[in-house]
Amino acid sequence: MEKLLRRCRVRSLLVRECLAECLGVYVLILFGCGSVAQVTTSEEKNGQYLSINLGFALGVTFGVFVSRGVSGAHLNPAVTLSLCVLGRHPWVKLPLYAFFQVLGAFLAAATVGLQYYGESTCIPASLATWLNVWSSFYLQVIGTAALLLCILAIGDRRNTSIPDYLQPLLAGASVLVIGISMGSNSGYALNPARDLGPRFFTYIAGWGDEVFKAGGGWWWVPLVAPCIGALVGTLIYLLMVEVHHPPLSPEIQPSCQEATEGKTLELEGVEPDGGKPA
Amino acid sequence: MEKLLRRCRVRSLLVRECLAECLGVYVLILFGCGSVAQVTTSEEKNGQYLSINLGFALGVTFGVFVSRGVSGAHLNPAVTLSLCVLGRHPWVKLPLYAFFQVLGAFLAAATVGLQYYGESTCIPASLATWLNVWSSFYLQVIGTAALLLCILAIGDRRNTSIPDYLQPLLAGASVLVIGISMGSNSGYALNPARDLGPRFFTYIAGWGDEVFKAGGGWWWVPLVAPCIGALVGTLIYLLMVEVHHPPLSPEIQPSCQEATEGKTLELEGVEPDGGKPA
Amino acid sequence: MEKLLRRCRVRSLLVRECLAECLGVYVLILFGCGSVAQVTTSEEKNGQYLSINLGFALGVTFGVFVSRGVSGAHLNPAVTLSLCVLGRHPWVKLPLYAFFQVLGAFLAAATVGLQYYGESTCIPASLATWLNVWSSFYLQVIGTAALLLCILAIGDRRNTSIPDYLQPLLAGASVLVIGISMGSNSGYALNPARDLGPRFFTYIAGWGDEVFKAGGGWWWVPLVAPCIGALVGTLIYLLMVEVHHPPLSPEIQPSCQEATEGKTLELEGVEPDGGKPA
Amino acid sequence: MEKLLRRCRVRSLLVRECLAECLGVYVLILFGCGSVAQVTTSEEKNGQYLSINLGFALGVTFGVFVSRGVSGAHLNPAVTLSLCVLGRHPWVKLPLYAFFQVLGAFLAAATVGLQYYGESTCIPASLATWLNVWSSFYLQVIGTAALLLCILAIGDRRNTSIPDYLQPLLAGASVLVIGISMGSNSGYALNPARDLGPRFFTYIAGWGDEVFKAGGGWWWVPLVAPCIGALVGTLIYLLMVEVHHPPLSPEIQPSCQEATEGKTLELEGVEPDGGKPA
Repeated sequence: MEKLLRRCRVRSLLVRECLAECLGVYVLILFGCGSVAQVTTSEEKNGQYLSINLGFALGVTFGVFVSRGVSGAHLNPAVTLSLCVLGRHPWVKLPLYAFFQVLGAFLAAATVGLQYYGESTCIPASLATWLNVWSSFYLQVIGTAALLLCILAIGDRRNTSIPDYLQPLLAGASVLVIGISMGSNSGYALNPARDLGPRFFTYIAGWGDEVFKAGGGWWWVPLVAPCIGALVGTLIYLLMVEVHHPPLSPEIQPSCQEATEGKTLELEGVEPDGGKPA
Repeated sequence: MEKLLRRCRVRSLLVRECLAECLGVYVLILFGCGSVAQVTTSEEKNGQYLSINLGFALGVTFGVFVSRGVSGAHLNPAVTLSLCVLGRHPWVKLPLYAFFQVLGAFLAAATVGLQYYGESTCIPASLATWLNVWSSFYLQVIGTAALLLCILAIGDRRNTSIPDYLQPLLAGASVLVIGISMGSNSGYALNPARDLGPRFFTYIAGWGDEVFKAGGGWWWVPLVAPCIGALVGTLIYLLMVEVHHPPLSPEIQPSCQEATEGKTLELEGVEPDGGKPA
Repeated sequence: MEKLLRRCRVRSLLVRECLAECLGVYVLILFGCGSVAQVTTSEEKNGQYLSINLGFALGVTFGVFVSRGVSGAHLNPAVTLSLCVLGRHPWVKLPLYAFFQVLGAFLAAATVGLQYYGESTCIPASLATWLNVWSSFYLQVIGTAALLLCILAIGDRRNTSIPDYLQPLLAGASVLVIGISMGSNSGYALNPARDLGPRFFTYIAGWGDEVFKAGGGWWWVPLVAPCIGALVGTLIYLLMVEVHHPPLSPEIQPSCQEATEGKTLELEGVEPDGGKPA
Repeated sequence: MEKLLRRCRVRSLLVRECLAECLGVYVLILFGCGSVAQVTTSEEKNGQYLSINLGFALGVTFGVFVSRGVSGAHLNPAVTLSLCVLGRHPWVKLPLYAFFQVLGAFLAAATVGLQYYGESTCIPASLATWLNVWSSFYLQVIGTAALLLCILAIGDRRNTSIPDYLQPLLAGASVLVIGISMGSNSGYALNPARDLGPRFFTYIAGWGDEVFKAGGGWWWVPLVAPCIGALVGTLIYLLMVEVHHPPLSPEIQPSCQEATEGKTLELEGVEPDGGKPA
């Protein structure tokens, strides 16, 4: 059986990365939006707001475990964008990563939607609860900035050296606390794929135009604001902590560089034309 | 005292594995169904839906800790079946494993039942809440597929290398998030033993035929659907991630092979007639 | 300042162990009974049943962290008794350990009681909710047996080898899941010190005889039942898993023996008259 | 891009420490007070008391991750004070650390305040719920003493040796359990900066004098009581556990000393005039 499956082996790293990002986001949204739907359809009998926070948090954890070893587990176009700006990921891969991230979210929304076929489950993050576009914009920026601040801190081996296998758990914990402290008003998308994939699904599944017109047509906010927030958070962490680390002594440098940039270097080895850092 | 106990030592690996699977499932169901009974009989005063999710999650964690070193801690006939199909576990052991898994669940249901003797506690996972057989079937398949996806990802050392002692915790976390995001409609059995053992107990304890007739006689759904779901989840993870890992260089291969297949190999060494992979 | 404190250094291992057990149980009860009092006095506004489960769980975790390196962190006379029966702890220390465990619980109950001075907080575990003495007895036995089963499994290096620093967390998690699944009817004392210490405090603080007469004078149940349960759980784990581990090869044995019995051996080295295992 | 940022590199260790403390407290208060505001403004729909406990706990965890490698992550003037008294931190840095800790809390309160602009969110910890100044004082002392007890235990490598990367999680867990068991009456500030920073912000943001006059002008209690509590907890742990550890043999001593005092020694190396332990 396993030998049979080995025949399906794909050798292209880029295809493998796209499959992994797609599956990782699928797991994230399956658990995250699944918990939203369960709380909503059971009218808080089978879960409360905290369950939704835990659903997204553990969704991130397992989404990262599923894809980390292959693609680095961005699972979020805003994260991919930040890494491209920092020169840690090739720009040329950005559209492909983003496409497969949205595709994974779309498929997961469909899986959740079929579970509750016939019941109205409001899957997009922020369809109905928007009071004010600027307030939402501000919240999305702050939330995504806080996410990147946490992710960069737990990944910065010169601050605290955390083993690889704990990082998916800590990434999940950061999403948990953002949900607990900043999820109230606009559903904390933090992730363009998390919003756009389910929105496409609801568009196809019968809500129609409404999903893009709701709240005054501000569907672009959860796409743009997280990207800005990701860059803001990245800048804050770099300027307040990371850039001030003293330079490494020559003999330690290679292994540390490998630790923080290893994956990117490996990718560039495969696609020599891909790496054009800013 | 300890010397006295040593005299009881059983040398047969197969007997030890059966005892360990039985005790592991016993712990899982004792905590899981115990939390269901506590929430139900206290009318949500001493716990809410999240407590049940945590009860099963930590039940899995400690069930795995209890049995992992001896039997590999399948604790679920659907998991054993998947491993047999993959050629990682001998087919000949499948019925024995399944029997002792159901036995452990039966004994745990009896222990919980005696705690609430005289009060009606609806122990089988899915007796009353089924609305529609196909919807339940679909949910059980998706839920068990998600479970296997998570379990295979955390066990795949070529994705993220996770220490042995953390895997029981992560297995518990995966059951937690499935309960939070997909437990609503049909009680997320995910495990034929978890459903069948308590069902036998309620049959004996006085509910009688009712437990097999309820919901239109669909008692077989939580037996069949998890097995299908387990195979679906296994296939998805293998085809989207695991089979595409690049082949190992010759000198690393033996130790990695040992890491993923070690237990099976060890078993086959003891029972040379046992291993007939598909 | 630190040099000043060093002058207070106590050299006797036994005194250090008693201080550590006392402080460990103090921390456990301070957090555990503190959470009961907070939920009760705020009428579930500042916490719910799950908060109490978490309060005791994290109380155990930090109580173990505080005392583990010095006394082995029994924190429970029933645990000390089990270890004596197994020959892993000297019988002669049992009364001293038990006394300081109860003293720590008494001091913690006093600390919590002063916080809510003037308000009636029912601190003993099981004063009012007993319906039936045999049902309570049964629950205490099952609960403490489950606790010992979990603790022995996580401490058994031949099952899963878990690092020292994770064991306090897993001990806490086992208390969490027991509270979630078996805490309903009688408050899951699981620990004679946890019940007797606060009971003495309420006796002194003005409840008087009532605390020993309540429920038909069955105050001895949470003292006797946990001891029986601890022995039952120990026997089950040993007979179903631990005694069947294959004997170690000679060159590995010393280090493993050290791992499971190291602390006791060390104690016996200091107090040669102390170790009289059964 | 990264090269551009490297130009901003600050070489002074003291400036780096102040930036790190400021950012660490910012993260702590952003998540902690954010969760208070979310629960309050949603009238417990988007979170309950437990969410606030989790918000502060994970706020501490990520605040520590953000700053630990640079400044040692005190994040609390009372902790800095305790370390100065113990001679593990130079007195001369105390006012600077305290100032930047309060500044971080102020900025975080402003960030949270802007999210709910126009809604009245009572950000200071203990503005309205004080019943009695001495009861509050007592609670703040006990709570901060319990915090220091836990933090010193998890940092004491001669008790249980815990890896660096787990300490931020355990520090968060200790704040969680203190919130669960002692947060009821006065909002468990435990930290002068956590109270003073938001209080300044509400003063500026329009509440005016009221924030210092409320409750009879006892605004100084959450500043003074945590400092006393921190010293009490430190003394208890040292006198009951730490000072009694047997002296190390000469060849082990240097590395252990390094483990507990390493950071301070490093600081003194940079600022030879800074270290004047008591």
